[in-house]
Amino acid sequence: MIVTLTPNPSVDRTIEVDVLHRGAVLRARATRVDPGGKGVNVSRALAANGRQTRAVLPAGGWEGEQLAALLAPLDVPVVVVPVAGSVRANVSVVEPDGTVTKLNEPGPRLSGEEIEAMTAATVKAAADAEWLACTGSLPPGAPIDFYAQVVERLGSAQVKVVVDSSGAPLVAALDAGPDLIKPNREELAEATGRSITTLGDVVAAGEELRTRGVGAVLASLGADGAVLVDATGATFGSATVDKPRSAVGAGDSMLAGFLAGGGSGPAALAEALAWGAGAASLPGSRMPTPDDLDRDAVTIADRIDPDRPLKERS
Amino acid sequence: MIVTLTPNPSVDRTIEVDVLHRGAVLRARATRVDPGGKGVNVSRALAANGRQTRAVLPAGGWEGEQLAALLAPLDVPVVVVPVAGSVRANVSVVEPDGTVTKLNEPGPRLSGEEIEAMTAATVKAAADAEWLACTGSLPPGAPIDFYAQVVERLGSAQVKVVVDSSGAPLVAALDAGPDLIKPNREELAEATGRSITTLGDVVAAGEELRTRGVGAVLASLGADGAVLVDATGATFGSATVDKPRSAVGAGDSMLAGFLAGGGSGPAALAEALAWGAGAASLPGSRMPTPDDLDRDAVTIADRIDPDRPLKERS
Repeated sequence: MIVTLTPNPSVDRTIEVDVLHRGAVLRARATRVDPGGKGVNVSRALAANGRQTRAVLPAGGWEGEQLAALLAPLDVPVVVVPVAGSVRANVSVVEPDGTVTKLNEPGPRLSGEEIEAMTAATVKAAADAEWLACTGSLPPGAPIDFYAQVVERLGSAQVKVVVDSSGAPLVAALDAGPDLIKPNREELAEATGRSITTLGDVVAAGEELRTRGVGAVLASLGADGAVLVDATGATFGSATVDKPRSAVGAGDSMLAGFLAGGGSGPAALAEALAWGAGAASLPGSRMPTPDDLDRDAVTIADRIDPDRPLKERS
Repeated sequence: MIVTLTPNPSVDRTIEVDVLHRGAVLRARATRVDPGGKGVNVSRALAANGRQTRAVLPAGGWEGEQLAALLAPLDVPVVVVPVAGSVRANVSVVEPDGTVTKLNEPGPRLSGEEIEAMTAATVKAAADAEWLACTGSLPPGAPIDFYAQVVERLGSAQVKVVVDSSGAPLVAALDAGPDLIKPNREELAEATGRSITTLGDVVAAGEELRTRGVGAVLASLGADGAVLVDATGATFGSATVDKPRSAVGAGDSMLAGFLAGGGSGPAALAEALAWGAGAASLPGSRMPTPDDLDRDAVTIADRIDPDRPLKERS
């Protein structure tokens, strides 16, 4: 059982227009609505591959009901914490040339009681779980060290914790000593203050974060692959994607694969790469099913070339 | 009783951002959601002034439920025609300097059965009404002469019909000989092919439309006022607005005032101007209550100066 916590989920509306002209009245060519949130995506990927999962999320308003309705056909068991405010509606404006403009709402302001209810629901849902994934941004009203507080509240529970967030909430979570974090290149740079331009930089940043109490660092590098830094050292792997379609949710799928693959070591890294590549080959934020996973496309390197430059910003 | 028909209603989301940078990830500063659609606004204004009204609209999907929930506290009696597709969600991106970028969805494609159900519900709702207001754009699937078909289906019913639409649906509706149309300056130009730059142009266009079978033309000209062209000739009036806040929905409020004021003649025109000015002095698409109407701010001119230039595009 892998439990995910998404404190600030969303309903994601994608609007296709010819060109986004500021100040104009534009006719949308097509729109679609998807459930949004990192933990929601992780649970979607796990459910699509027959893994037991539970997604904990606060939900309120019409967007909250819409989110539940969007998740229902995906067979994702959801633990909804009712809140007064509405789930945020994020808008992506997509143009044929690939330009994407995002309008992200901050999310509803949660009260102290709602934060407490979300924490309690998470601790309860995680009681019989192997992993708890704490994911994404925090809604207004949440303390910046919310993820650290959740870890503290888990107490002596056997569940392992992975944090996949960014900025101050990620840095504040480091103090709680999570078993795993999954930063991308930008988040790695942000958390360490280092410039990350080579695989060697990734390894050094991962090692620094380990000295700050993190068990392992799974650094997702987009098309450049991924690096796992743990107690045994650093491992690099990559996967080829013949026809990349959409990187949206690929990092979430990668984390799901890592946890499904055992949550540690090169075998889990290989599974993470297969799941990430599977999501990258699918449109929108679609998560891969077993048929979408091509494990032959994954390479785990014998050694890491520290001077190898990173091409993609992840 | 004044019945409104809104074949393509919407849930209107307004997102405030600092600047709409194409290709950027923007943090929304605030968002609000309002019920949308011309007829919905007309019924809102009437209900806010204690007038009997009924709003007929097709609704489906989560946005349809959201629209009903947004209308419930406004005390607008709604006749919902259930449809399979979702009510469209229109997005307005608003910047502090007043720049507004609109992303309008086309709306759900209605089936022949759904169009027929909407027509039947309208005829039934209008059976005891004085006025039926056919408003706004048509959803995909509707015949371009939908409003003419509705008028035909009303048969010998005593209800008078006003059409407030634009483009081809407005032109096609003229053939049915509606009692009233309420074009703005742009719609007047579009329907007649004339250039409209003076009050004289407005009167000439209105008279042309009357020769094509329309009973009366209420031309809304924004801050320039309004012109009523009917069997007795043309009347011009205007209203001063001390602090204009938002023109959104002001034309709909004007139409509501005209109908509430009797639906013909200078007294109805004066009421229309008071209601339009009331809406223009309120934020967003808020409709005026009796306290928001300043009838002393309205002037009905003794004669029309045909050379008077129009300042505002409406």
